[in-house]
Amino acid sequence: MPEKPVVHSVKTIAQTRLFHVEAVELEFSNGARRQYERINNDVAGAVTVIPITAEAVIMVREYAVGSDAYELGFVKGLIDPGEAPHEAANRELQEEIGFAAKNIRLIRKTRVTPHYTTAVGYILLAEDLYAKSGEGDEPEELEQLHWPLSDIDNLLEHKDINDVRTLHGLYWLRDYLASGHPL
Amino acid sequence: MPEKPVVHSVKTIAQTRLFHVEAVELEFSNGARRQYERINNDVAGAVTVIPITAEAVIMVREYAVGSDAYELGFVKGLIDPGEAPHEAANRELQEEIGFAAKNIRLIRKTRVTPHYTTAVGYILLAEDLYAKSGEGDEPEELEQLHWPLSDIDNLLEHKDINDVRTLHGLYWLRDYLASGHPL
Repeated sequence: MPEKPVVHSVKTIAQTRLFHVEAVELEFSNGARRQYERINNDVAGAVTVIPITAEAVIMVREYAVGSDAYELGFVKGLIDPGEAPHEAANRELQEEIGFAAKNIRLIRKTRVTPHYTTAVGYILLAEDLYAKSGEGDEPEELEQLHWPLSDIDNLLEHKDINDVRTLHGLYWLRDYLASGHPL
Repeated sequence: MPEKPVVHSVKTIAQTRLFHVEAVELEFSNGARRQYERINNDVAGAVTVIPITAEAVIMVREYAVGSDAYELGFVKGLIDPGEAPHEAANRELQEEIGFAAKNIRLIRKTRVTPHYTTAVGYILLAEDLYAKSGEGDEPEELEQLHWPLSDIDNLLEHKDINDVRTLHGLYWLRDYLASGHPL
């Protein structure tokens, strides 16, 4: 593997409420110089939560402004300052689907677009759910879909699922269930 | 599914070489109003290409400025104006790994972060490879890794793979191989 490029400077070139754009001056180990741009998310990361009951995985439909469509996906959200990933996951579950989980575990740390953003994503599995609601900042109640754990293959083909994080989570879940998780 | 929010206005609030940030004024069907922000990528989309030989899948190590690390992943890149996804895929293959493909097919249209960007991603499988190089804008030659098709499970656990698009593509490939593709 080549030596990492030297970062000569990092400058903020745009800042909105949500997006902080940086220009990064780089020198590669072969001497090539480039100015790259990235979004610095300035946050501890985001969680994607896979909540399962004994029979079903719970998905939500949420309006996405990037695609201007209702996307079928997992409960997710940004980690608040001071929160651990599993705490953020449990909070988002309560806000988005009205459940908390007695058992939440980290599956994998990922990146969504490592070439364009500094964002880190944590994927968590939530089990042993119980009813508990939290007040979120969602503009409307999210529609829930309880999909049979025995039929993940068809969910992977669902036309309203476009987000690669959701598809990745579903593939992982299918492996987890196949590995002997009691249905 | 609720009626889609009404978009009252879309305004550019920041513009850099790579990122175009928009503020979108929305009114949800229940009357709730929000201002959301998104990155408008202003491009035809991006391709993620899975090149396979009879024995191996070809991965590349490329420096990612968001994670400030060399990420192991698939050949990928933006679609140029006027290009079809399979044309972009074949161009990127030549630029990044020095191969072209006689057989390229679209696997799935996805979105990376539909809540934050308008970006569309196309995942393509490239087969029947032959040596052919193209001149790209890469600052350095990319290191290639030829990984046995018989061992995708261990590749899914590789510590240098963080991008969910790569993980999703590997899961898809494992299914494709298991479905009877001749190894």
